[in-house]
Amino acid sequence: MRKFYTTLDLTSYQKEFLNYLEKKDWIREPKSLYEPIDYILQLSGKRIRPVLTLMAADILSGDYKKALPAALAVEVFHNFTLVHDDIMDDAPLRRGKQTVHEKWNLNTGVLSGDAMLILAYQYFENYEPNTFQELAKLFSKTALEVCDGQQLDIDFEIRNDVTIDEYINMIRLKTSVLVAAALKMGAIVAKASVEDANLLYEYGLNLGLAFQLQDDYLDTFGDPETFGKQVGGDIIENKKTYLYLKALELADANDKQKLEFFYQQKLEENSIKIDEVKRIFERCDIPTLIQQLIKEYTTLSFDSLNKMKISTLNKEKLIAFGTYLMARSK
Amino acid sequence: MRKFYTTLDLTSYQKEFLNYLEKKDWIREPKSLYEPIDYILQLSGKRIRPVLTLMAADILSGDYKKALPAALAVEVFHNFTLVHDDIMDDAPLRRGKQTVHEKWNLNTGVLSGDAMLILAYQYFENYEPNTFQELAKLFSKTALEVCDGQQLDIDFEIRNDVTIDEYINMIRLKTSVLVAAALKMGAIVAKASVEDANLLYEYGLNLGLAFQLQDDYLDTFGDPETFGKQVGGDIIENKKTYLYLKALELADANDKQKLEFFYQQKLEENSIKIDEVKRIFERCDIPTLIQQLIKEYTTLSFDSLNKMKISTLNKEKLIAFGTYLMARSK
Repeated sequence: MRKFYTTLDLTSYQKEFLNYLEKKDWIREPKSLYEPIDYILQLSGKRIRPVLTLMAADILSGDYKKALPAALAVEVFHNFTLVHDDIMDDAPLRRGKQTVHEKWNLNTGVLSGDAMLILAYQYFENYEPNTFQELAKLFSKTALEVCDGQQLDIDFEIRNDVTIDEYINMIRLKTSVLVAAALKMGAIVAKASVEDANLLYEYGLNLGLAFQLQDDYLDTFGDPETFGKQVGGDIIENKKTYLYLKALELADANDKQKLEFFYQQKLEENSIKIDEVKRIFERCDIPTLIQQLIKEYTTLSFDSLNKMKISTLNKEKLIAFGTYLMARSK
Repeated sequence: MRKFYTTLDLTSYQKEFLNYLEKKDWIREPKSLYEPIDYILQLSGKRIRPVLTLMAADILSGDYKKALPAALAVEVFHNFTLVHDDIMDDAPLRRGKQTVHEKWNLNTGVLSGDAMLILAYQYFENYEPNTFQELAKLFSKTALEVCDGQQLDIDFEIRNDVTIDEYINMIRLKTSVLVAAALKMGAIVAKASVEDANLLYEYGLNLGLAFQLQDDYLDTFGDPETFGKQVGGDIIENKKTYLYLKALELADANDKQKLEFFYQQKLEENSIKIDEVKRIFERCDIPTLIQQLIKEYTTLSFDSLNKMKISTLNKEKLIAFGTYLMARSK
């Protein structure tokens, strides 16, 4: 059993990370390349991924500070994916503010994004060669998986034979592997055992899946007052999420036809479509089924912790984080 | 004095590299992400950069084979810049074939490019941690400089106060640092002394500048029969190359006004513009001046070799490469 008892709570990690982020002087010449990087990194967010890197290092070595450069690499990479994904989705807004390619232009979005991907690798240079290689290898593997996930997401838009397994695999690549890698990077910096590092990775991978499925659920069934994005957005965009794919499997012939019909339409006025699709989902009991699946992944996630050689207090801390993440307004 | 005498000539390095490239099975799932990578890497080119990595390793250790992964990283990175630059320039053709974003679409160009940048880093994983870190550090520094250079090139389009020093700095970043880094990576793999590695870098940096200035010269004064691209392309695009900037400095009031006038026009029919601008350049003796500058950088480049602890035969080999590179049809 490790002896480390961490004293910091979630908000403290966020604060420590933001302090570190603010100390970085992004803007250098040519300004037109680095100002957009500063802009996107300032747009507030929960900083979930870097917090996980710090927390993992803290739990496994009692020292979160040496994980700050790795945490920054993860956050800068995540923001790189936001900038390039927003180009691909032609999204005008991100967290209520203009996206980079919208505020500047396409070329700035492409090139500033590229620079961020390279900057992320540079933060690993703070570590000695063995740790550097371990971090960079995990990072490259993860980054490529995120690209694969994004490509699958694009491919699914024009495919009509997407299976639920394929969907789960896509969100695993697009979302979960980065959450998992963020934790494992903290473990690598802490020089934890391979077993503990891999168990933390599993914890993150399953928590990431639960989180994304929860996000899919809230996108349709969330409270418009508290859900950050427009409720019904996935239905408007005809996104083939678990909700849709599972409903196609379970719906009767009439509902199935209706669902497929609605998912071929791009409409100006969507309230009827959203309402009808929600009713089909409810008739198929999808809200219950997705909640069960979310529970399964959350349980799998927390199960990994039981196999880890860490104190009960630290296990509780990781469970508390998972609970916080999943307890967003339903 | 090192004892290594290399037996391979330029064509052999090219062949060895192409063999290695062909053995790579790029295309994996999702195919829509990896097929464009295979496509751009198949478009023939002289493979100058990877050849330099192999040659440097061969000269400094007698073993070019262990430099193959580093050479591939350099070539994949170079092709990543082509894919993203073609998006930014909205270029329909590359080496006479459709560009990636034209053959597929914008999203494929962005995402396949991103994947190539990550793949480049992964090839360094073939080396042990110390060499890996040295290579990845040089690579990140270089890649970021190339982004800076591309951004400066974009910025210069709308600036009217670009100096010759700024122009030289831009082509240094956009073109030369990668040629220099390709050589230094070969030296790192060969475990050469820091002095030799840095002298090879200097050789490449100055040779790269000479090469780019030669390219600028040929773009306006080259033989349409033998120059690969459209002669006059830079004039049509109002590119502020050395030719233009030096002419602005030297032209009389009348020619200066004419030059500035022409460089504000985007025309359908360009033969008169090209002809008039060429005459101004000639009146200012620009062809002689740029040839002198090219000679200066070539001499600087070859001077670095004299300080290296390598055999005369190997020096001659590097001079022969420089001469080959600069001896393109004038």
